[in-house]
Amino acid sequence: MAKLVAIYKKPADVEAFEKHYFGTHIPLAKKMPGVRKYEVSAGPVSVLAGPSDVHLIGAVYFDDLEAMQKAFASPEGRAVAADRQLYAPDETGVQIFVFDTREV
Amino acid sequence: MAKLVAIYKKPADVEAFEKHYFGTHIPLAKKMPGVRKYEVSAGPVSVLAGPSDVHLIGAVYFDDLEAMQKAFASPEGRAVAADRQLYAPDETGVQIFVFDTREV
Repeated sequence: MAKLVAIYKKPADVEAFEKHYFGTHIPLAKKMPGVRKYEVSAGPVSVLAGPSDVHLIGAVYFDDLEAMQKAFASPEGRAVAADRQLYAPDETGVQIFVFDTREV
Repeated sequence: MAKLVAIYKKPADVEAFEKHYFGTHIPLAKKMPGVRKYEVSAGPVSVLAGPSDVHLIGAVYFDDLEAMQKAFASPEGRAVAADRQLYAPDETGVQIFVFDTREV
């Protein structure tokens, strides 16, 4: 499956972040055509040495990269991208990766 | 499921990296007790704006964080961690995140 993974650093206002992410962003994202699964980190995100500066990792899954591209080109997809700028603007250092996967 | 995600930047020697990662590291990692799934990025890893400096993203899955901790405390787990330093030493900027997940 293809996925988009977003790694969010700890926000200044955790409560506002969570409210927007779970209350607005995820419902919007799940309206995109072709979404197969939405997964979030549950509890703390650690690095091997201990706690990290990451607050949450979210991943949305599609059948393949073509389906993902179609989703983000749709009106629903454009709304999702615009919404993300509201609770995690680029300058907050959010990392977003897009890739296909295979099991080995 | 709990997962460990490793984000590898483009290595100086791609061929040597791939040979070690697929030929040695993954087989070692799959020997750890409790491994449920091993997944790698297939093809390029992009950021939203285009290509990224990431070469590969690997993820290994366990039932929960306790199972993962047991795995990495085992002799097989210690061998995996030592092996990773051979093909992607900490100073290459590899990012490794450990977290539990839930579907939303």
